[in-house]
Amino acid sequence: MSRIGESYLVGLIGDGITASLTPPMHEEEASHHGLRYLYRPIDLAPLGAGAEDVPELMRAGFRLGFSAFNITHPAKQSIIPHLDRVAPDAAGLGAVNTVLLRDGATEGHNTDLTGFASALREGLPGADLDDVVQLGVGGAGSATAHALLAAGAARLRLHDPDLARARTRAAELGALFPAARVEPLGATGLPAALREATGLVNASPIGMHAHPGTPVDPDLLHAGTWVADVVYLPQETELIRRARALGCAVLPGGHMAVGQAVDAFELITGIRPDAARMRRHFERLVAEQQGAPAGA
Amino acid sequence: MSRIGESYLVGLIGDGITASLTPPMHEEEASHHGLRYLYRPIDLAPLGAGAEDVPELMRAGFRLGFSAFNITHPAKQSIIPHLDRVAPDAAGLGAVNTVLLRDGATEGHNTDLTGFASALREGLPGADLDDVVQLGVGGAGSATAHALLAAGAARLRLHDPDLARARTRAAELGALFPAARVEPLGATGLPAALREATGLVNASPIGMHAHPGTPVDPDLLHAGTWVADVVYLPQETELIRRARALGCAVLPGGHMAVGQAVDAFELITGIRPDAARMRRHFERLVAEQQGAPAGA
Repeated sequence: MSRIGESYLVGLIGDGITASLTPPMHEEEASHHGLRYLYRPIDLAPLGAGAEDVPELMRAGFRLGFSAFNITHPAKQSIIPHLDRVAPDAAGLGAVNTVLLRDGATEGHNTDLTGFASALREGLPGADLDDVVQLGVGGAGSATAHALLAAGAARLRLHDPDLARARTRAAELGALFPAARVEPLGATGLPAALREATGLVNASPIGMHAHPGTPVDPDLLHAGTWVADVVYLPQETELIRRARALGCAVLPGGHMAVGQAVDAFELITGIRPDAARMRRHFERLVAEQQGAPAGA
Repeated sequence: MSRIGESYLVGLIGDGITASLTPPMHEEEASHHGLRYLYRPIDLAPLGAGAEDVPELMRAGFRLGFSAFNITHPAKQSIIPHLDRVAPDAAGLGAVNTVLLRDGATEGHNTDLTGFASALREGLPGADLDDVVQLGVGGAGSATAHALLAAGAARLRLHDPDLARARTRAAELGALFPAARVEPLGATGLPAALREATGLVNASPIGMHAHPGTPVDPDLLHAGTWVADVVYLPQETELIRRARALGCAVLPGGHMAVGQAVDAFELITGIRPDAARMRRHFERLVAEQQGAPAGA
């Protein structure tokens, strides 16, 4: 379904996404492929709109010739009942971040999930998934956890300041992936878990400019653990920096941020983009924006 | 307000406009200026929508990041009460074909009117406007009549198969342009009027592929009359061909079709496009489409 010469109109609907780097990432990559491609951020806040308005915005957009939407907070879950079809992995996760119009029907996908999976594959090839500890089980954390289990993680321990939420998520994911051990992890268990862990994923906001610091005591890290982060502003969180200094294999957050855009671009156009080129562009954009707050 | 490097999202809302040549005209001209520019046809028919749905489509479009809309049949009049501001010439005409969003407010313009005016100026420089006969007083005819009077026509006689409509339009235009003589013209008066006329404008559909022939007996034409047509498919109507053969100065319909797009492009981008280049592109598009039915 590659359609060079076609034109594409894509929107990102979400709250506070005016400064998102996803629109320029798509547009620049499309230019390299000679596509007429326009990607519009549609920020709910200035429209005075909320999650409940997203289905109607999406429907109106498709009537007006939009090819696809990326959907982000706060509508990744609530959009689902308004779609005609949902890809199985997105349905299992219960969240959609990409909606296509195919033969007149709306179709939901989740490229946070596939984007993290391919980031993991390409950025940490051969990463040992025997025993992974993940910090944070919100929206991003659900996608990374799902991707880790889909990639074959044997054991996944979920830590969250809200232990009840970690318990619920662990039970849900355990039901979806019965071959894996998915367990909640309290604060007291963290040091021992990190000593044993083959990998650590930070899916919490700690490390962002607005939430500086590290999500765990960096003295608990050791060289035998790979470390991935979903935070991409700054490009290198303190967690990634400390881990790199210890000799850990690391996956900074930019890989997931780019991965979701790479996969969405391919779903929309049928053309596999140049992921390395998109990452270089993303890094330039982040460098320009360093210090400024950014959206999804 | 020229904004090179900006991106533009424009829609054409109307009935049966899927094959319109306006979208490719805008997009190609924008490429010459290095603009990221997407122009989407939004055809009401396949949406099961009518004139009453256009205000909501337009509002939704602006929420979704559209920069502007062209509006055509059947909503050029009915959109007016839904706009924040209307340019004086469009308000006088009672029809809008271009809506911009400026500082959050919707602003209506009519580039059929200004497009015909500039087509007349550039395609028939120095045309004698002392005594003009116009055939047809529908939507296009209202715009051409208004443009002729605004350009200084001293006398304008309006012929229409519906003589009552010609009378009403003449009275309305006479009130707007009190210095001019605007008169309805019945079929019996046509031969004498054409003998005296300095110019003839066909604003009726006669001459289109679907309505072949000439709107008046071509034996009534004489070399002293310039002849303009609004029909652009075929590029040369039989009226234009016969008039050209007689030695008349002629203005084929493509000039108005391009003129409306030239003026809309400038309103939207703040950049004056290359009208000659747009006309050459338009002529290539028409040549590709010859024989196929086309929309606005």
